[in-house]
Amino acid sequence: MNITLEQAEKVIAAAKKKATELDTKMNICVVDGGANQVAFARMDGAWLGSADIALKKAKTARFFDMPTGEIGKLSQPGESLYNIEHSNGGLISFPGGVLLKNKKGDIIGAVGVSGSSVENDHTVASAGADAL
Amino acid sequence: MNITLEQAEKVIAAAKKKATELDTKMNICVVDGGANQVAFARMDGAWLGSADIALKKAKTARFFDMPTGEIGKLSQPGESLYNIEHSNGGLISFPGGVLLKNKKGDIIGAVGVSGSSVENDHTVASAGADAL
Amino acid sequence: MNITLEQAEKVIAAAKKKATELDTKMNICVVDGGANQVAFARMDGAWLGSADIALKKAKTARFFDMPTGEIGKLSQPGESLYNIEHSNGGLISFPGGVLLKNKKGDIIGAVGVSGSSVENDHTVASAGADAL
Amino acid sequence: MNITLEQAEKVIAAAKKKATELDTKMNICVVDGGANQVAFARMDGAWLGSADIALKKAKTARFFDMPTGEIGKLSQPGESLYNIEHSNGGLISFPGGVLLKNKKGDIIGAVGVSGSSVENDHTVASAGADAL
Repeated sequence: MNITLEQAEKVIAAAKKKATELDTKMNICVVDGGANQVAFARMDGAWLGSADIALKKAKTARFFDMPTGEIGKLSQPGESLYNIEHSNGGLISFPGGVLLKNKKGDIIGAVGVSGSSVENDHTVASAGADAL
Repeated sequence: MNITLEQAEKVIAAAKKKATELDTKMNICVVDGGANQVAFARMDGAWLGSADIALKKAKTARFFDMPTGEIGKLSQPGESLYNIEHSNGGLISFPGGVLLKNKKGDIIGAVGVSGSSVENDHTVASAGADAL
Repeated sequence: MNITLEQAEKVIAAAKKKATELDTKMNICVVDGGANQVAFARMDGAWLGSADIALKKAKTARFFDMPTGEIGKLSQPGESLYNIEHSNGGLISFPGGVLLKNKKGDIIGAVGVSGSSVENDHTVASAGADAL
Repeated sequence: MNITLEQAEKVIAAAKKKATELDTKMNICVVDGGANQVAFARMDGAWLGSADIALKKAKTARFFDMPTGEIGKLSQPGESLYNIEHSNGGLISFPGGVLLKNKKGDIIGAVGVSGSSVENDHTVASAGADAL
């Protein structure tokens, strides 16, 4: 019940397609159920600094089994998980990381996308996740 | 006046029992008086990212000899310990880390719990601490 | 096909028993199939510095699906994997890390032991692995 | 004069093909002229620990514009670059990292491969480089 490379490549292909439709340039990273990187692609001209963010978004989504943006709501000043980003070698808690599930609903990994607005990042990550 | 492994295992057993009562899945970490890990357990299905948080909560509680949530109040924007989380390789300053004391009241270590709401995390950590 | 906490606790109990038989004090760490920590125990009086070594031995064994000592043979000066220890945030390549398999032979994790001679470390780790 | 994602994907596809011919399972990483990751793939069942090594081999090759194995000759005890692996967040100096050049001979990036013997790693990396 772990993602295969073929599945990860499908996720990245779908994410790239959506990114192009939105006229954006994205870094896209897929991790497996153990939060270890399986596949990665940086589109031409995408921000260099977004590569690490895409990886951290994918890891963060799998670390807590929820979309990264949900964690960000809880990590604001005064909220219950304030500064959780200091754990696990650095989390990214704004939108763009979503879980990957197989058709039965088992979690098999996560995808992280970075390179545009967080709304676009989330849309592209979701398009990737929907490809499975 | 340092925690023994037998005591640490008692703390973890009590914390696991409370976690199960609350229908939660927790990462539980015990450190000694030197803030070094003595024992750890990740319950089946608990969040992967909570392992590091449980460790950091236990360390944070012992680093400053208070429950982690107390530090979090002081680390908010504008407060006196703003962003203290950047020290010591990363602190976690929301609830779930509590001190461990022997019957005489000496500090012998700390326990950190992560995997649910911070209220549940704190309740489970306290149940662990009460086992001593 | 991932290790459960109950299995990990069995591994640690068997390793502790063997460590006591050998009159040694060990740090014992179990990781799952994704190389993430599941359980840990430091026996009373065991070296503080061996906690991180036990974790790194467990991770190293799972990272390359072989006993850590095998990697150490290949990482010597002049050998093919010289200085591989600089990868993955630090590897430990001397004996004491061994794979954990279920009865069908699937890899479900790894155990790392540190606290005595590498021969004793390996013996204790193997006793842990045999408990499954 | 920097590698494109399309070129990087060609490199990875050729490397995967060669890896399959050799009956090996590889981690394959492509970096650009700035030594930043462009694309990555971990073949199903490949060693988890080889992901970071593949990245570090690709970076190392580009950092010094030579195949990683050449650096390893110079980093042995008593040699001129002894323990250079401590720089740049960790280098990998055994074979498996090679430069990527365009048809004019300009360096446009590097590929790193890890997952088998260093001879196989180098063969697969070279097959990737030849695809350009």
